[in-house]
Amino acid sequence: MSIRIGIFGYGNLGRGVECAIKQNKDLELVGVFTRRDPATVKILTDGVGVYHVDEAKDMADKIDVMILCGGSATDLPVQTPELAKYFNVVDSFDTHAKIPEHFANVDVAAKASGKVGIISVGWDPGMFSLNRLYASAVLVDGESYTFWGKGVSQGHSDAIRRIDGVVDARQYTIPVDAALEAVRSGSNPALTTREKHTRECFVVAEDGADKARIENEIKTMPNYFADYNTTVHFISMEELKRDHSGIPHGGFVIRSGKTGANLENNHIIEYSLKLDSNPEFTASVIVAYARAAYRLSLEGASGCKTVFDISPSYLSHKSGDELRREML
Amino acid sequence: MSIRIGIFGYGNLGRGVECAIKQNKDLELVGVFTRRDPATVKILTDGVGVYHVDEAKDMADKIDVMILCGGSATDLPVQTPELAKYFNVVDSFDTHAKIPEHFANVDVAAKASGKVGIISVGWDPGMFSLNRLYASAVLVDGESYTFWGKGVSQGHSDAIRRIDGVVDARQYTIPVDAALEAVRSGSNPALTTREKHTRECFVVAEDGADKARIENEIKTMPNYFADYNTTVHFISMEELKRDHSGIPHGGFVIRSGKTGANLENNHIIEYSLKLDSNPEFTASVIVAYARAAYRLSLEGASGCKTVFDISPSYLSHKSGDELRREML
Repeated sequence: MSIRIGIFGYGNLGRGVECAIKQNKDLELVGVFTRRDPATVKILTDGVGVYHVDEAKDMADKIDVMILCGGSATDLPVQTPELAKYFNVVDSFDTHAKIPEHFANVDVAAKASGKVGIISVGWDPGMFSLNRLYASAVLVDGESYTFWGKGVSQGHSDAIRRIDGVVDARQYTIPVDAALEAVRSGSNPALTTREKHTRECFVVAEDGADKARIENEIKTMPNYFADYNTTVHFISMEELKRDHSGIPHGGFVIRSGKTGANLENNHIIEYSLKLDSNPEFTASVIVAYARAAYRLSLEGASGCKTVFDISPSYLSHKSGDELRREML
Repeated sequence: MSIRIGIFGYGNLGRGVECAIKQNKDLELVGVFTRRDPATVKILTDGVGVYHVDEAKDMADKIDVMILCGGSATDLPVQTPELAKYFNVVDSFDTHAKIPEHFANVDVAAKASGKVGIISVGWDPGMFSLNRLYASAVLVDGESYTFWGKGVSQGHSDAIRRIDGVVDARQYTIPVDAALEAVRSGSNPALTTREKHTRECFVVAEDGADKARIENEIKTMPNYFADYNTTVHFISMEELKRDHSGIPHGGFVIRSGKTGANLENNHIIEYSLKLDSNPEFTASVIVAYARAAYRLSLEGASGCKTVFDISPSYLSHKSGDELRREML
């Protein structure tokens, strides 16, 4: 019997989850929930209904795990605790500073309902977090470094779009090679924000806009760009669509640490991702944790969990025997 | 209160475990067990006793976790099930093909005694296995590749030493750059043994030995070298000691997989290790899992486990709250 999945929110991430479900034979999509008029939403899976979000709770007995695909700013803080009253839930809440609060809210709701909620699933938070934890537990005396990119930052692209005279924009975050090499050398460098990443911006300006002003506004924007070396390229809308329509991302988690009677030996643990599609990869991680949520729930678990609390074997459709034989 | 650890077997790995325990404030070494005359074994930790292996079971109430540091060929298949009758145990059993049998034996013993046994802990099996599992659970449609090196292979070095006229030898396993690049390109290449790794040998020959014969015997040795491109360098004992006394190792686990409605997007997950000391790194992993064994035991768990069965949070001395705040 398949694990019955609902998708709550149908943007890039929701579509990614839909595609990922197709790749996993033990998972079955049973419904997509949207705030839009369901009649206007066309999905990729034949024979699966699209429902208004208000209809979700009436389908509690038809869905084993609800996957929340909304945004971290305003959607998930409300939706995940609310839906945990009715469903096992998985979300990709990624506002790192607010994870403790979100965890507590989902935990209360999920414990009360006897459901499992897994929050902050994806690659950062998610697979990167796992690698930070494993590496620091193994190499106790050391330093961990996270680099992001090369990839599109949605938040930074949006910030550029809000500048007067900008029609559209795409911002890439790029790790600095020299910083990566310094970390890999085992020298445990102290790196400033500026030394770790550069930002490259592709901007479509309105006809006759003051490009020098736009470039200056970008480069001096506090929080977003002022602390970075930023490059700005003005291009046509045609070029933007042709060369920058993908949503690639990725990055590196590196830990460098020492062992030995006199800490004389150095070790480097490096984990990296190179992703053609950020939302589709995030969705693939989420779907594996949806399987885990279902299994944990079957075992009688309840409450909020993160990737730190889930045994790796729960992510795979293979049995313990198969995993030990094929992968250990 | 500290977690009280015993070390069973005191070679390179045992010494590595002893050093790793010093790096973890919540762990305390309470005894080293050896087959040699304990009076002849000098350890690095003041005030800790060295005992004969036969004395171990009398200390069952003084040790929370016994770490087994013997070899996989003949020691661990006997010792781990036997000691699991008295202790929570962790071993680094690394004969991949015999893991299912070893697991079953330890499971029977540990279930009968109500203890926890964690087997096959280290980096391969161990951290590499975890990465194979996580990556394949996330990227369902893809291929996984494991490369080893550059590093010293003890088994291959030993095989060379058994050749007539060889005084000493060191063998390095080296991944082929072109193969790594092909995998990273996302082309999912089918790679032969010869295409993945080369073998480089540093050999000290007896005075007057027939070097051409030795080189030929190495290069044509079945299983060990015949399927590889092998380079042989004859050096002096002085050079061997000066340049090849370390035990470095490492390697790569790479998975390349596709997502999307038409599997149009490719993703690369890469995990790599670059280790100055193979036994000390292995020991560092083992010690983190000793903490996990103790915690699982406190919760009432029993039986055999592997890295696949352990939630990552059990490896860290930090609380769930701290982990979510600092690493998620």
